[in-house]
Amino acid sequence: MVKKEIKPGTYLYPMPVVLIGANVREKPNFMPIAWVSIVEHSPPMISISASKNHYTNEGIKRNGTYSVNTPSIEMVESTDYAGIKSGNDIDKSDLFEVFYGELETAPMITQAPLNLECAVIHTVDLDIKHDIFIGEIKKVYANEEIIENNIPNIEKLNPLIFSMNDNHYWQIGKLIGNAWSIGRQYKR
Amino acid sequence: MVKKEIKPGTYLYPMPVVLIGANVREKPNFMPIAWVSIVEHSPPMISISASKNHYTNEGIKRNGTYSVNTPSIEMVESTDYAGIKSGNDIDKSDLFEVFYGELETAPMITQAPLNLECAVIHTVDLDIKHDIFIGEIKKVYANEEIIENNIPNIEKLNPLIFSMNDNHYWQIGKLIGNAWSIGRQYKR
Repeated sequence: MVKKEIKPGTYLYPMPVVLIGANVREKPNFMPIAWVSIVEHSPPMISISASKNHYTNEGIKRNGTYSVNTPSIEMVESTDYAGIKSGNDIDKSDLFEVFYGELETAPMITQAPLNLECAVIHTVDLDIKHDIFIGEIKKVYANEEIIENNIPNIEKLNPLIFSMNDNHYWQIGKLIGNAWSIGRQYKR
Repeated sequence: MVKKEIKPGTYLYPMPVVLIGANVREKPNFMPIAWVSIVEHSPPMISISASKNHYTNEGIKRNGTYSVNTPSIEMVESTDYAGIKSGNDIDKSDLFEVFYGELETAPMITQAPLNLECAVIHTVDLDIKHDIFIGEIKKVYANEEIIENNIPNIEKLNPLIFSMNDNHYWQIGKLIGNAWSIGRQYKR
């Protein structure tokens, strides 16, 4: 194989697609992002990176709460729409049906099959263009039909998969194997 | 639809799978992780969250460098093996063919089609069980055959997709649409 050097870029494949919810100026607002990662399991924590000029960031900072909503592929159009239109320009409060949980200020999307209700525990504020919010996942809500053995089932959830740079949405494909298992017999 | 509350957990779907490389005690070592996210585009930056007891963390802290290597699905067995076996117990320096770039201390995997060479710019050291390393992507190397229009092509890269909690590896599936496009005609 031949290695080539290419221009440094945001080359992580694949990425998830989630809708971040926050109350901004007393109204629910949502933005799709792909720069999101679990960072801790006990207690569960999730980090998101969002451009400092995003309207949603204002609400996250004010309330110290946000939600992470995973849309299914059926929601691709409304999810993409939420990313094209900024809360600075349009009111997105009626784009989705909204419910609230125990934190009271983190709006969640009823249609999205999986909802994480998060409290900010740390903000990484580097001299860069993005805020990195680290939140503890306080409560989790899921549509009954995607739950299997008390956890979400990825095939039933049917999440969007994002490839950045070429900017395509994909569906999950075929099963390859089980983690911490398929490598057990590996011969070096 | 009926919402049910489930126990808070690490519910982000899907996750990528990358092999993190670092020199530990003068030898290359690699660990697979799924808790990884782009956090900035200019300059490009990538964050990883890794349990503080991982052998690899020691090398990242000492050298201030690491690599992010994306395996293709053909590498599923060696990737999983690298996660089952710790550098504390076995020498993983000959598990993959290794090359180095300009940072000199971030070992990269020749077989992996995509390699990001990173310099740590910030470590988020919260009172949790994981180190969160934020690195600038200084150089990118890719196998010639996965490059299209000067960027990686996700179908040619054929990365592993991970579902946590049920712990399955998946392949990418069918194309759903284009981002910042498919939502343009959305009618509320």
